[in-house]
Amino acid sequence: MMKDTSCDLAQCGLPVALEVMGERWSFMILRAAFNNVCHFEDFLTLLGIARNILSNRLARLVDHGILARDPCADDRRRVEYRLTAKGYDLLPAMLALRQWGEKWGSTLCPDQVLCDERDGQPIAPILIRAHDGRLLGVQDLVWRSQSEIAASRKAAETQVA
Amino acid sequence: MMKDTSCDLAQCGLPVALEVMGERWSFMILRAAFNNVCHFEDFLTLLGIARNILSNRLARLVDHGILARDPCADDRRRVEYRLTAKGYDLLPAMLALRQWGEKWGSTLCPDQVLCDERDGQPIAPILIRAHDGRLLGVQDLVWRSQSEIAASRKAAETQVA
Repeated sequence: MMKDTSCDLAQCGLPVALEVMGERWSFMILRAAFNNVCHFEDFLTLLGIARNILSNRLARLVDHGILARDPCADDRRRVEYRLTAKGYDLLPAMLALRQWGEKWGSTLCPDQVLCDERDGQPIAPILIRAHDGRLLGVQDLVWRSQSEIAASRKAAETQVA
Repeated sequence: MMKDTSCDLAQCGLPVALEVMGERWSFMILRAAFNNVCHFEDFLTLLGIARNILSNRLARLVDHGILARDPCADDRRRVEYRLTAKGYDLLPAMLALRQWGEKWGSTLCPDQVLCDERDGQPIAPILIRAHDGRLLGVQDLVWRSQSEIAASRKAAETQVA
């Protein structure tokens, strides 16, 4: 991959994501939320996290619009935390990290595997693809400016026409 | 997504990944390493990180086999840090986080975009796919045990035969 010379930290999406997610407990809370955990006490029991840390991290995830905090439908005195669209959109990143941990970690092969409901088979490894679906390796990647991208597209269209 | 009842924390790949990566600076160091930064002083300047924290995080990444620490080819008194295969394998997770940050963050559209060298066009969004390449949403995902997966495969093979 060529050097990303001009993409300074202020312009890159990674620091934005890490400001919210670059913290172990936030990830673990989201993992529980993806598994339909939504009550404070259930997060507490499942994660074995200190009450004040859980409270702080949930508030931060709500502030960032990743979780929504609403009264329960069946008991308005209780509160539940649910993933928003912005929160659900973190799933590919979480699964990519999880797959990496399974591949390179020393944990045993997990008994429960994430599968496609339609055919019951495990999901594919999360990999980098071109716009047309071809798999890309790190050696296939280059940084381009918006004007270079527009020029490549124009050249491709001229060839086709 | 169905509840992941039996996958306890010890069996899940995510805590393994977060033990190493669930820390903002580790991710930022890797991001620099992917852009071919390999010398201590260059990490220091680029990231604006404190010397002792950088030293600590580099050592941890080396301990975990994500970076290799070797003498420079052209000056054996200097040391360089290079991504290992295990380190390169983190790229899909990093790009998925970065894309999320670009989509949902308040940063402007970045001028430098990661592209496929072959056609000069931006890479595809990193998404979840079935083994045959179909895109999957969170509603398509279920947790299955290894024996359930084997049974589904057998049933599909019988249908084909």
